[in-house]
Amino acid sequence: MTVEVTTLVNGEPFSTLSVHDRGFLYGDGLFETIAVYRGKPLLWDRHVARLLDGARRLGISLPSIADLDGDAKRLCAGVERAVLKIILTRGIGARGYLPASDSSTRIGMRLPWPDFPRDNARAGVSVRICETHLGHNPRLAGIKHLNRLEQVMARSEWSNGYAEGLMLDGDGNVIEGTMSNVFVVVDGGLITPDLRACGVEGVMRAVVLEAAANRGFRCQTRPLTLQDIDAAQELFITNSLIGVWPVRQVANREYPIGPITHKIQEAVRDAHGFERD
Amino acid sequence: MTVEVTTLVNGEPFSTLSVHDRGFLYGDGLFETIAVYRGKPLLWDRHVARLLDGARRLGISLPSIADLDGDAKRLCAGVERAVLKIILTRGIGARGYLPASDSSTRIGMRLPWPDFPRDNARAGVSVRICETHLGHNPRLAGIKHLNRLEQVMARSEWSNGYAEGLMLDGDGNVIEGTMSNVFVVVDGGLITPDLRACGVEGVMRAVVLEAAANRGFRCQTRPLTLQDIDAAQELFITNSLIGVWPVRQVANREYPIGPITHKIQEAVRDAHGFERD
Repeated sequence: MTVEVTTLVNGEPFSTLSVHDRGFLYGDGLFETIAVYRGKPLLWDRHVARLLDGARRLGISLPSIADLDGDAKRLCAGVERAVLKIILTRGIGARGYLPASDSSTRIGMRLPWPDFPRDNARAGVSVRICETHLGHNPRLAGIKHLNRLEQVMARSEWSNGYAEGLMLDGDGNVIEGTMSNVFVVVDGGLITPDLRACGVEGVMRAVVLEAAANRGFRCQTRPLTLQDIDAAQELFITNSLIGVWPVRQVANREYPIGPITHKIQEAVRDAHGFERD
Repeated sequence: MTVEVTTLVNGEPFSTLSVHDRGFLYGDGLFETIAVYRGKPLLWDRHVARLLDGARRLGISLPSIADLDGDAKRLCAGVERAVLKIILTRGIGARGYLPASDSSTRIGMRLPWPDFPRDNARAGVSVRICETHLGHNPRLAGIKHLNRLEQVMARSEWSNGYAEGLMLDGDGNVIEGTMSNVFVVVDGGLITPDLRACGVEGVMRAVVLEAAANRGFRCQTRPLTLQDIDAAQELFITNSLIGVWPVRQVANREYPIGPITHKIQEAVRDAHGFERD
């Protein structure tokens, strides 16, 4: 009998972690959520680069790329479609906030592909505006860290009818979705929110920004208001699992699925081997 | 041979938890840090009440008080001096932020009493002003939740010379220390920061507010500025482990250890059985 390995802790087939790990005690760590298709973690190099960049910003000991590669290979081999989640924490240290640990804990887990409605990428989705705000913290902005209670609280605001919720900061600027980044098309150019004060710099967001530049679309990164959302000709959300989902409706405003959204979807598909259902 | 139990997970003597627990994945949970003295967790009822209040606010299934009491008794029996940490998470749920779990995970751990310098309560401490800010989030403000990266980043700003660092919000208001609440004495009355936008409502803070009211001191809860800190006649910090530590110095400004600080220290000692070293 072969026991199928779905979780690795520091490269070993464990599925538990010490209650003294700072990732658990303080959310002192980072994660990556990665689409797996035909045995390969898609956009792997970008996910690794973001993880290491986050670790540098938080001062967490960097894992070796060989170890990360090894975990990914082991968890993805022979898998048709799944989600690979990589978590890196500051490991076990002394009690208290002082990050005295110079170890880290590396966790890999393979999860089932989510049951997203297959038609979302083609037919578009409805999103809502969340009441839970994102707090400003320039030192943590952009990083995909383990402090995600704001997203949990925002996501708990609805149970069905919406594919996603947009989150604002305390100034009323639109920052991102609970699990995605957001782009609007205004006057034929793209705008995506500035994430210097809060939000997560999604890997798919970076892919879209590059694709847009390569296709000659203007693309601005700047504060985005609800007025911009209202004035947009097209709107879409992105992440590494969903790719690009057109937004058909925000609150009472409806949007067409326009030509720029289609071109961005094509570009992402072409460049990265995503097979849309 | 008896194996001494120092950690309990849902009442069982385990020291690990599932990597799928939302407390780990998202910091989706709460904690209490409690002084143990001569077999008793001090201010236990208040800590339990705050934990349950936080659970209600986050929508986490409440543990039974009997279970919490049982954990505490088991971990504290016969212990002269220690720290009891209680953690409550939303448990294991489906992938994604939606808090669909109706279970919770209850963890208790006994930790060694920290090596705080014994003289801090009498001689006072030096504190610094941190550069890491606290983000505003009214939905999470006051709650002692597991999202503590802001505190970790703030605490990493110094390694020695200071007992604590004060944290400001993005508007420049003083909110709290990395591990403590802060009080100033101005014109013979106490002021402690308003925590409606961010910060943790410490159990010791509540004890001090009551002690102050009982002794007839005026006590205001309002936004606190660096000007207030500068203008203060006395300054002290509080938490459940340190009790009340007078602050002797913030940046270049020095403070006497004044009569009101002494009276608050006495009141806390008298009411709650803390034996100062």
